[in-house]
Amino acid sequence: MRALPVGEFFSRNRYNEMMQVATVHPPSELLQFYSEVRNHSEKLCQPLVTEDFIPQPIIDVSPPKWNIAHTTWFFEEMILKKYVSSYREFNPQFGFLFNSYYNSIGARTKRDQRALSRPTVAEVFQYRKHIDEAMQKMLHHDLSSEIADLITLGLHHEQQHQELLLSDLKYTFSCNPLFPVYNAEIVHEEVSEKITSVWMAIKGGIYDIGFAGKGFCFDNELGRHRVYLHDYSLANKLVTNAEYLEFIEDGGYGNFNLWHSEGWDWVGQNEITAPLYWLQKDGEWCNFTLAGLRQINWEAPVCHVSFYEAAAFAEWKMMRLPTEFEWEAAADKFDWRLRWEWTNSAYLPYPGFKKSSGAIGEYNGKFMINQMVLRGASVVTPPHHSRKTYRNFFHPLLRWQFTGIRLAR
Amino acid sequence: MRALPVGEFFSRNRYNEMMQVATVHPPSELLQFYSEVRNHSEKLCQPLVTEDFIPQPIIDVSPPKWNIAHTTWFFEEMILKKYVSSYREFNPQFGFLFNSYYNSIGARTKRDQRALSRPTVAEVFQYRKHIDEAMQKMLHHDLSSEIADLITLGLHHEQQHQELLLSDLKYTFSCNPLFPVYNAEIVHEEVSEKITSVWMAIKGGIYDIGFAGKGFCFDNELGRHRVYLHDYSLANKLVTNAEYLEFIEDGGYGNFNLWHSEGWDWVGQNEITAPLYWLQKDGEWCNFTLAGLRQINWEAPVCHVSFYEAAAFAEWKMMRLPTEFEWEAAADKFDWRLRWEWTNSAYLPYPGFKKSSGAIGEYNGKFMINQMVLRGASVVTPPHHSRKTYRNFFHPLLRWQFTGIRLAR
Amino acid sequence: MRALPVGEFFSRNRYNEMMQVATVHPPSELLQFYSEVRNHSEKLCQPLVTEDFIPQPIIDVSPPKWNIAHTTWFFEEMILKKYVSSYREFNPQFGFLFNSYYNSIGARTKRDQRALSRPTVAEVFQYRKHIDEAMQKMLHHDLSSEIADLITLGLHHEQQHQELLLSDLKYTFSCNPLFPVYNAEIVHEEVSEKITSVWMAIKGGIYDIGFAGKGFCFDNELGRHRVYLHDYSLANKLVTNAEYLEFIEDGGYGNFNLWHSEGWDWVGQNEITAPLYWLQKDGEWCNFTLAGLRQINWEAPVCHVSFYEAAAFAEWKMMRLPTEFEWEAAADKFDWRLRWEWTNSAYLPYPGFKKSSGAIGEYNGKFMINQMVLRGASVVTPPHHSRKTYRNFFHPLLRWQFTGIRLAR
Amino acid sequence: MRALPVGEFFSRNRYNEMMQVATVHPPSELLQFYSEVRNHSEKLCQPLVTEDFIPQPIIDVSPPKWNIAHTTWFFEEMILKKYVSSYREFNPQFGFLFNSYYNSIGARTKRDQRALSRPTVAEVFQYRKHIDEAMQKMLHHDLSSEIADLITLGLHHEQQHQELLLSDLKYTFSCNPLFPVYNAEIVHEEVSEKITSVWMAIKGGIYDIGFAGKGFCFDNELGRHRVYLHDYSLANKLVTNAEYLEFIEDGGYGNFNLWHSEGWDWVGQNEITAPLYWLQKDGEWCNFTLAGLRQINWEAPVCHVSFYEAAAFAEWKMMRLPTEFEWEAAADKFDWRLRWEWTNSAYLPYPGFKKSSGAIGEYNGKFMINQMVLRGASVVTPPHHSRKTYRNFFHPLLRWQFTGIRLAR
Repeated sequence: MRALPVGEFFSRNRYNEMMQVATVHPPSELLQFYSEVRNHSEKLCQPLVTEDFIPQPIIDVSPPKWNIAHTTWFFEEMILKKYVSSYREFNPQFGFLFNSYYNSIGARTKRDQRALSRPTVAEVFQYRKHIDEAMQKMLHHDLSSEIADLITLGLHHEQQHQELLLSDLKYTFSCNPLFPVYNAEIVHEEVSEKITSVWMAIKGGIYDIGFAGKGFCFDNELGRHRVYLHDYSLANKLVTNAEYLEFIEDGGYGNFNLWHSEGWDWVGQNEITAPLYWLQKDGEWCNFTLAGLRQINWEAPVCHVSFYEAAAFAEWKMMRLPTEFEWEAAADKFDWRLRWEWTNSAYLPYPGFKKSSGAIGEYNGKFMINQMVLRGASVVTPPHHSRKTYRNFFHPLLRWQFTGIRLAR
Repeated sequence: MRALPVGEFFSRNRYNEMMQVATVHPPSELLQFYSEVRNHSEKLCQPLVTEDFIPQPIIDVSPPKWNIAHTTWFFEEMILKKYVSSYREFNPQFGFLFNSYYNSIGARTKRDQRALSRPTVAEVFQYRKHIDEAMQKMLHHDLSSEIADLITLGLHHEQQHQELLLSDLKYTFSCNPLFPVYNAEIVHEEVSEKITSVWMAIKGGIYDIGFAGKGFCFDNELGRHRVYLHDYSLANKLVTNAEYLEFIEDGGYGNFNLWHSEGWDWVGQNEITAPLYWLQKDGEWCNFTLAGLRQINWEAPVCHVSFYEAAAFAEWKMMRLPTEFEWEAAADKFDWRLRWEWTNSAYLPYPGFKKSSGAIGEYNGKFMINQMVLRGASVVTPPHHSRKTYRNFFHPLLRWQFTGIRLAR
Repeated sequence: MRALPVGEFFSRNRYNEMMQVATVHPPSELLQFYSEVRNHSEKLCQPLVTEDFIPQPIIDVSPPKWNIAHTTWFFEEMILKKYVSSYREFNPQFGFLFNSYYNSIGARTKRDQRALSRPTVAEVFQYRKHIDEAMQKMLHHDLSSEIADLITLGLHHEQQHQELLLSDLKYTFSCNPLFPVYNAEIVHEEVSEKITSVWMAIKGGIYDIGFAGKGFCFDNELGRHRVYLHDYSLANKLVTNAEYLEFIEDGGYGNFNLWHSEGWDWVGQNEITAPLYWLQKDGEWCNFTLAGLRQINWEAPVCHVSFYEAAAFAEWKMMRLPTEFEWEAAADKFDWRLRWEWTNSAYLPYPGFKKSSGAIGEYNGKFMINQMVLRGASVVTPPHHSRKTYRNFFHPLLRWQFTGIRLAR
Repeated sequence: MRALPVGEFFSRNRYNEMMQVATVHPPSELLQFYSEVRNHSEKLCQPLVTEDFIPQPIIDVSPPKWNIAHTTWFFEEMILKKYVSSYREFNPQFGFLFNSYYNSIGARTKRDQRALSRPTVAEVFQYRKHIDEAMQKMLHHDLSSEIADLITLGLHHEQQHQELLLSDLKYTFSCNPLFPVYNAEIVHEEVSEKITSVWMAIKGGIYDIGFAGKGFCFDNELGRHRVYLHDYSLANKLVTNAEYLEFIEDGGYGNFNLWHSEGWDWVGQNEITAPLYWLQKDGEWCNFTLAGLRQINWEAPVCHVSFYEAAAFAEWKMMRLPTEFEWEAAADKFDWRLRWEWTNSAYLPYPGFKKSSGAIGEYNGKFMINQMVLRGASVVTPPHHSRKTYRNFFHPLLRWQFTGIRLAR
């Protein structure tokens, strides 16, 4: 697999992707990766009925149909139309319908108008099939590294949308008074960490930060560079629901001293009193999950908190959130696969960050303002998708991703 | 059929219904009416695929599934639950899900959150079947006039939602860049009036206004009363697309002298330059219709204009819109079945307007502010639903109903 | 004085009036009228300090400096610049600064940006003096009826702004936690009606409505015409604060059955619990007035209620508000000088309403949508300004004018 | 001068600074400092007329009267009321009126309602005099270091409001079509740097960042710590108006590739085409300044640009903005007194940042989200107020401060 100057952000708020590390990739391995990823998307759709593919309750949350079609569009627009002269377009309007935000590719559906009934769900799956056939044919031939890298990127891109498909669906289902169940088997959200909480002390000094080695990474991880860290400690375990409940019961949401000024306004204007998806029913705290409305598992890590809530909780504990550098320097010492972990680092370019040319690289740095970095992965991140240098980012008020809290001091 | 103190407004903006005139109604006739109306709703859904039942692009426009379920809910909530002790509720949550705005019945889904995937479309049709069976059983027995009147009201209510189903669907489809076709056979939107335009002079004097006689009417038509009218003239024919195009080409949308102050702001803020659904394609004016995107039939009556546009057009013609009283006094002299016709009358109570008690009558006058009266009917109004005393009403900026212009002087 | 095609309105969007009845007016009388009106404006400013002339707390409320300058601008723009060739403009930028909404006269200060520190208050009074000298010189000569009528109009216009000056100032002062006192002597807001409340029964039949006879009127009063009224009764006395308190204490603001749907939303969104300017202090109801914060005089007529509140109160009493025609037909039978009285009539043109040409007549009908008519006058209306055919109008949610309630049934 | 645990900031949300380094301060020096600062505020008001003290055109911009009173309030509330038992409050309502955002001190005037006419300007200057007399009496005695430090803090706080007084006033005057002149002598905004532009190369390595040594600083400068910097270069000179004009003329505002995604939305929604205060008059670019509307001095540094514009300009130059650490490490090598210089660093706590207790320390970190750091000082910063470790901060869209651009690579 070769270095690829490519990047994309799924949405106004989301993921910045860029693969830039070159690797040689045998076609047979790439074909297998392709099949695995594409099949996984379809497997995630199996519990859905046709109606579930349509609603978009808020601008941030895309319908499943859109996620499924947009990831397919990527292969058609970025690879087949460009490199396969015999390729026959499935439907010339899909280029418009399923573009997310590529200005250089042209006009597109407005981001808040993705809840379209047509094309039908069946047509979108035919579209997937059409593209898969053309891609698989391609993947049986030797590919230039440029093309192989673009395909690799498209698959990582699709993995990101697999996570979005689940977090978006959870949000959409949570708006339905019937509280539909997605599936109790595919996702285990409320896994708890069976370890004793301890502080891990890390020695100060110069650390190398950013991606190194072989394999895929996004461009925002590149520009490996030195950072000086002072001595610090990290918790080996995420904050649990039980700990977070103490914060609530101690009046954390009503104590302005704990909050950023904008966080305090956010709490007041939105009448926030608990993490997203928590609700009280007959005096008991429940939790809406992809397996339906459940009693809260108090030992599981707290989930769906905003940066504001994470920071206020840390303040209440008289501790703080780690920076993304502190996090990365210690990442081998703890399990970071359960929640995206808010850091106290703003999403900014690394020294030496380079902008690519063309549609793929059009937006490399364009989301590097007003967002905070999250590190790790979550229970809905596809396996092997994330890594310790991965930089996820969201606006500080957003909560519909599977976000959690790790304390530092 | 007996007089019924009953009323409902479909929406924040819409229809006020009330049947108050008593009639004796043989069960067999009512059963037939019931079957016809209920079947007609289902017939209107036949061209739809499952996905079409879900989207709600703006707050005013409900999804077909909601329209279909809400009309069914009316029979369950207002009749079966109240009068049939053996009735078994289909799903206890549907009372919440499909209530429109009855405060006295309790909580309800927020009006802008009707785009729910569940219950599925199939479940909603099962719900209809469940209610139809219970209702049909009931309709084979003798009914008190109270119950017969409630059923009659529920059927007129459903007819109003049949019109909404089509106007809502047209709006939803118009937001889709694919411009889906509903059906070219069920609705003929662009019928033209094959008559020569003349002025009909009406003599001044005292006229009786409001519903009289037997049969069903809504409460806002009652309180038949005297109105003094001065001499006036009405056009025998609606304003055509061709005439409206002249207004556009003469700069009507750019001439502040023609507009109400609020209309002028509305034009500016929304960059209005033509009726809703008009668009230019390759230099030609087209018209989105339920039969798809079509070239405009210039002889057909203009459609989907706001009150502001209707009033500005009249001003440009140096004429005016009729009052609702002028309209009603002359209604036997012209064909009023093609477009809902904006009048220059605000929607206000007639002298002697009476408010009913309970859920049915809860809202009798509550929409009588800031709305303008429309008279007549439209190409999507179910046959025999309207009458010359019928008072439809909308806010002056709304355009998604099939609204047109008749001039007066 | 001759009929004048001129108009202005002082609602939220303002001016619309038009004088159309011709009268012969000796210059000496007009000169005296001019001096009286112009002096009265300055007298109203005497209790103010320089700082009071500046603030504009909300878009509807203009600063005193703007009211004082705009009324002067009227004479400069409409009369001196047009009819006096030797007239030397005071400041060429004032035409822009003090235009209210006359599109045909050109650009203007945005309506929400009238809180300007410059020109200074002293400069504005110099501007007044400059115009007064030019006008008084003019008024010593014989004038064409066209000019005399324009001057008359300008003076009625200024009287309207005298009322606005006080109602705007009251609003501005009410936003100041110091609750400044304007003056306890100039205005007596809380005068009570020392009469026993009785119903006045009015016989149905045809009534003539609209201005007739000699003297000045605005164009919206013209088009005297016949209206058929059914039997009705009017209260001889306005609703008092004591009666309104009963409504509050009976839970009127919490009972959706009493309210228009839009009124109910307005109450909820704005957390309305009492008339504007009422507040509770140490458990006692107080009332902010131009004489400062006072204990409420329970026998005085309630003031500063919206149309929504007036209508809800009437509903609670199981009565209603009169139409503007019922009001006018009975206006000789009661005292209507204390509060602008909400009617249940929308502000719409009379039959035969005519639009004038040019800047003066530019806007005759442009406010005739979404507003309700008020009849009568108030304690801050200048003496002899109003009359029984006068049609004032405001949007139904507005409260900063001295508005009250008279019941009908 | 002793270390003072006190701070305030003047961004959109304001204050956050805190001085924590203790110094011994002889009373006589402090008295002199007090007199200088307090006199300077009054000197800045000399060009104003009474009316100028009142308007608040937007929420971010406070009236001069408020700035003048609030700085006085600080001494009354934080020092006199707490430490001088014999102190007689000037007016008990001023504690409410002139609190900015101290939740722990209690309720306060809403931030967008500071345009109050009362108390009068004269009363506010009496208030200043009252406080000055009490403070001066105090300053003739020996003071504990705690009190001396609070006074020192209050004076630095007042200096910040001196800058705000001018930048707020400039904004307010710019909204007035008369474009008033403040003064041509006090401020020289358009000074140009008479040097040749060169790149200053800085060697990478570990640098110490943050305040050290004696004297006053705010708490956000404390926590001196090590930062590793890679090799970089800084421009010795700020970007000029001439260079910025090239960006405009090259279509910089229309090229999405140059902008952050949120910056691009900001440009589109606000129709931004030039720095704040630039306007075209008869085809010539002009610049509104405190000396009135002027032709642009093309050699002067560009001013009043947002972070978005600074970043887009740097992108267009194929360079970048420095981080705040790069800036500080090189600050001795260039003149940084002309413009607040946007850095590409988010405003975040230094390692070891400590939160103080009580009202003064209430808000230490509460603005450390969604804002970008500016370094340096500006032509309206009071002399000796800033220093090379000073961290100013604003939201990336704000432009009314005197902000400029220094490039890095």
